[in-house]
Amino acid sequence: MLNIGLLGCGRIGQVHARSVGQLDGVRVTAVADAMPDAANALASKIGADVREASALITSADVDAVVIGTPTDTHYDLIHQAAAAGKAIFCEKPVDMSADRIRDCQTAVTEAGVAFLTAFNRRFDPNFANLQQRLRAGEIGDVEIVSILSRDPSPPPISYIKTSGGLFRDMMIHDFDMARFLLAEEPVQVFAVGSALVDPAIGEAGDVDTAAVTLTTASGKICQISNSRRATYGYDQRVEVHGSKGMLRAANMLENTVEVAGTTGFQTAPAQHFFLERYEAAYRNEMARFVEAVQTGNTPSPSIDDGLRAQMLADAAAKSLETGAPVAL
Amino acid sequence: MLNIGLLGCGRIGQVHARSVGQLDGVRVTAVADAMPDAANALASKIGADVREASALITSADVDAVVIGTPTDTHYDLIHQAAAAGKAIFCEKPVDMSADRIRDCQTAVTEAGVAFLTAFNRRFDPNFANLQQRLRAGEIGDVEIVSILSRDPSPPPISYIKTSGGLFRDMMIHDFDMARFLLAEEPVQVFAVGSALVDPAIGEAGDVDTAAVTLTTASGKICQISNSRRATYGYDQRVEVHGSKGMLRAANMLENTVEVAGTTGFQTAPAQHFFLERYEAAYRNEMARFVEAVQTGNTPSPSIDDGLRAQMLADAAAKSLETGAPVAL
Amino acid sequence: MLNIGLLGCGRIGQVHARSVGQLDGVRVTAVADAMPDAANALASKIGADVREASALITSADVDAVVIGTPTDTHYDLIHQAAAAGKAIFCEKPVDMSADRIRDCQTAVTEAGVAFLTAFNRRFDPNFANLQQRLRAGEIGDVEIVSILSRDPSPPPISYIKTSGGLFRDMMIHDFDMARFLLAEEPVQVFAVGSALVDPAIGEAGDVDTAAVTLTTASGKICQISNSRRATYGYDQRVEVHGSKGMLRAANMLENTVEVAGTTGFQTAPAQHFFLERYEAAYRNEMARFVEAVQTGNTPSPSIDDGLRAQMLADAAAKSLETGAPVAL
Amino acid sequence: MLNIGLLGCGRIGQVHARSVGQLDGVRVTAVADAMPDAANALASKIGADVREASALITSADVDAVVIGTPTDTHYDLIHQAAAAGKAIFCEKPVDMSADRIRDCQTAVTEAGVAFLTAFNRRFDPNFANLQQRLRAGEIGDVEIVSILSRDPSPPPISYIKTSGGLFRDMMIHDFDMARFLLAEEPVQVFAVGSALVDPAIGEAGDVDTAAVTLTTASGKICQISNSRRATYGYDQRVEVHGSKGMLRAANMLENTVEVAGTTGFQTAPAQHFFLERYEAAYRNEMARFVEAVQTGNTPSPSIDDGLRAQMLADAAAKSLETGAPVAL
Repeated sequence: MLNIGLLGCGRIGQVHARSVGQLDGVRVTAVADAMPDAANALASKIGADVREASALITSADVDAVVIGTPTDTHYDLIHQAAAAGKAIFCEKPVDMSADRIRDCQTAVTEAGVAFLTAFNRRFDPNFANLQQRLRAGEIGDVEIVSILSRDPSPPPISYIKTSGGLFRDMMIHDFDMARFLLAEEPVQVFAVGSALVDPAIGEAGDVDTAAVTLTTASGKICQISNSRRATYGYDQRVEVHGSKGMLRAANMLENTVEVAGTTGFQTAPAQHFFLERYEAAYRNEMARFVEAVQTGNTPSPSIDDGLRAQMLADAAAKSLETGAPVAL
Repeated sequence: MLNIGLLGCGRIGQVHARSVGQLDGVRVTAVADAMPDAANALASKIGADVREASALITSADVDAVVIGTPTDTHYDLIHQAAAAGKAIFCEKPVDMSADRIRDCQTAVTEAGVAFLTAFNRRFDPNFANLQQRLRAGEIGDVEIVSILSRDPSPPPISYIKTSGGLFRDMMIHDFDMARFLLAEEPVQVFAVGSALVDPAIGEAGDVDTAAVTLTTASGKICQISNSRRATYGYDQRVEVHGSKGMLRAANMLENTVEVAGTTGFQTAPAQHFFLERYEAAYRNEMARFVEAVQTGNTPSPSIDDGLRAQMLADAAAKSLETGAPVAL
Repeated sequence: MLNIGLLGCGRIGQVHARSVGQLDGVRVTAVADAMPDAANALASKIGADVREASALITSADVDAVVIGTPTDTHYDLIHQAAAAGKAIFCEKPVDMSADRIRDCQTAVTEAGVAFLTAFNRRFDPNFANLQQRLRAGEIGDVEIVSILSRDPSPPPISYIKTSGGLFRDMMIHDFDMARFLLAEEPVQVFAVGSALVDPAIGEAGDVDTAAVTLTTASGKICQISNSRRATYGYDQRVEVHGSKGMLRAANMLENTVEVAGTTGFQTAPAQHFFLERYEAAYRNEMARFVEAVQTGNTPSPSIDDGLRAQMLADAAAKSLETGAPVAL
Repeated sequence: MLNIGLLGCGRIGQVHARSVGQLDGVRVTAVADAMPDAANALASKIGADVREASALITSADVDAVVIGTPTDTHYDLIHQAAAAGKAIFCEKPVDMSADRIRDCQTAVTEAGVAFLTAFNRRFDPNFANLQQRLRAGEIGDVEIVSILSRDPSPPPISYIKTSGGLFRDMMIHDFDMARFLLAEEPVQVFAVGSALVDPAIGEAGDVDTAAVTLTTASGKICQISNSRRATYGYDQRVEVHGSKGMLRAANMLENTVEVAGTTGFQTAPAQHFFLERYEAAYRNEMARFVEAVQTGNTPSPSIDDGLRAQMLADAAAKSLETGAPVAL
């Protein structure tokens, strides 16, 4: 039995608690949250203890921690958990600063603890299937990767102001997906962006509509587009062109029903947002973390993957600011 | 150069004239129609002579006749053309009476002239592709055939009264398609039907909504459904299940555009009716007739195919009337 | 908290136990199975007691029973549970004999206990969505219903011999779906069938490929087809034509990935079988049962629904035997 | 009757001759080609005279010229035709040099003759339908346009060497499509590209795989990708995201047949190349030219559209060369 200590009892912490509940051989023994009510509510629902974060991390009945607290707390929690020799499952982004992620990486490496950066989309059954087939050579060598992500609606302006901006908060998933699919590091980033959805986002110094072009040393190309708005559900698509063909993963719709009438044939919207769309991905990512810890294998994506996605986000932000491509 | 005499200058005659115009090595030299205006209009458009039907049939500059006149005139025209030794392309149905079709068959056989029964759907690129792959064994042995045909809207009641009824006028295409796909003669027909679209159709003694089940000696099953109404365009689909898989042909839509919004994803309606949907089929059927006549091969579908489809329609009408399955 | 006693710990009993585990306000307190090992295994996994069936039914800590035992035991268990005043969730078919179902119906009605016949497909998110929209009038009045069910592969011959045959064991789901969608009782059943998948099924007196036509008093038509074989996954589709358009529910595929190459565009097979395809349906049907019991509402589908589906299956079997349509 | 003089009897000239043949009120009276055999073959097929180009242009029985000769001859022919007061239908690109296109523009404007730049894709029924709905506001304000074009296989290296490169020869269609859909001029172009399909293309100084990002003054974004290879047919797609939703045009497949088997569901490849895919577009573009000339309306796309697409291609080539975005 693997004993999990859950740090952060908000929405994402609850998702991870539910994933643990559906797996054999693992349980949440203790939870922590700066908000006592949140900690108590989750603890009573799943039969876990409530502890203060630092105490939880050093508890003997905690083998691994799941970090789902605000991003600015990750740094300290990772250092504490590494020092305590606990395996670490950490929400993305690891930190807003690449340098601070490097510090965490050092701490984790020196402590020799397992670490998984929770890029959930790698575990989506559709994207995972696509990537496995890509790696197996089904469409030959990768030439162009196209990634599109559109949220159903923008977050509150208050969130925008502290999120680090669209590239670090939203497109970071796509940067990780790009690396996952390209299997070669990007060497150049070019970004454009605008505030077309809500002028207030522009006034807050961010963009809500953006496109990025990545290139690799061997000439592979990746096009990414993001928007904070999609009226037809959470739009999450990937398309990869290779020397022998194309692989793409379409959206998951709310249901398979189609209606036909005078205006044509209509299917349901895409599943609304990440909790629905990535339900299986969240379950799979926890399963793979648990499996890695139990078998002694190295979890993936690693803290290095977390660092490299952050570096791409930083480069995109710089490209947008300077108007020029940024070399990595 | 193959010289065609066109009998009937109405809508379907004009379709065939256009098909001839798009083919090399063939031309329409003369046309005939009981309505002089119709004959003159088409003749001047395509540069052909206008003649009286009997004279046209025996003309030296007519190698083959295309019969697109009202059904009750086919019998005489076929006999005249056979007597004159002309190749015959005849619209379906050959005749309303199976016995009279047998008479025609005798005349055609004795004269040794080429004869094609114009079941246009066999030449639709989709259905033709499906049937070729079926014959090539792509899904193994046929087990269940499902055919669905729905017209966009019912014809005038005046047409209903003289058409021979839904089974002989509309479903006859599906009976031919069933034989084309089953590759084994049906031995039993069971039909049900109702007047759900327009009560006046029921008062005229016909049905506008019907379903038929065919079975063959080896146990293959075919389900057909027809309706005189489809709000979303001309619905024309075929699905075949075999021992190794399934082949189906979907509708052709007006275009490939899809719009996404709050209610989901919407594509265009199906192409409106037979002139659009079967444009390529009409062209291909004429090309195949011309090719057969020019090479001396036997055209297909034959007059026997025309007879057998009519026998199935008769059996379906009898089944509907008696409420019992009819053996063939 | 609603306390459930689970009768039958085989595959379907385990499915229901899992559904209960995912719902709030309900738990399994006791389980029973003729096989002690099966009962013990499930009990230890979910923290329930093991009891003998009759004792379980009369237990004070059991408010409702879930009957997932072999069909021939349903009759006695239903009578016992009704006598004990317990709410009853019963797997389909309620019984192989319509007369015995009527006996059960009397017992249940006289005891005034809640009863749900577990036709799981009514709770599939796709079919449920389609039926709600149909009832809401989205496509006007129903005219033709088409239902297709194909299992990935046939069950063992030993099962075939005791299952009551394809109409009572497999197509019974489609008969219930037909009633669910037609919203009008069929008055006539016509069936055809063959043993095309495996001759041994024919030797066992059953068919593995079948088609049924239902008609209602107002002239609505339903076409059903079944096969024990589908190489591309569990094929489960419904299509309804109404006066204003068409509603259909497509298969759920294993994933949304599509690959393109020289032979075209390929998507994944359909989800393999009922445990995957109807995972959400099983969860929803238990949720609706629990909700009905807790609120005092009448669960649906009722025991009468179970009876009427069985009557349609009996009629289909008789039609196949006699070769004639059977009136209801 | 509008009399056309056809300049150039190669593949594209034959396409335009066929389009003219399918239209009422227009005919080809004379053809010219540097290759006498090509001119004679086409002339005899369509019943036209063969003339030398300059003589053809000044012929009294020529109202309009269709220019389908090699690009480097366009400049002189346009000047001659403008001087002769003939309406001009000119294949793209108008010229390889933007300055020379400006010269042509001056000549055409001063002569006051009608001029259509033959960007055939604007007349594709799918893209035309999409653009009309976009203009009608169906998805609100345009935010992101995504255009993908992939040829089935690369042209000969000899062609690559004289074509002006991928941006001027292939992506020029997409630049025009971008302008057609954005309805606002791009102000910046950023291009990346590689030779991944064939190293010989790289050695010839060109790329075969490329991606371009366009931005407009109001912040609209357009992503274009091109490749000289697509194993699954000619890939031609457009997707537009607006404030209220998304419009996209999918590929046209060879047929609507789908086969299902153990590996899933497979449809046909996309139509092979431009002659099949844009058959309707070629017919429509000629019809619109003829209609404009006959009614005295200004044809579209104009010579200015030809110029602006060329300027975008030049900017893309410069961006690729310099590695930096290029302002317009």
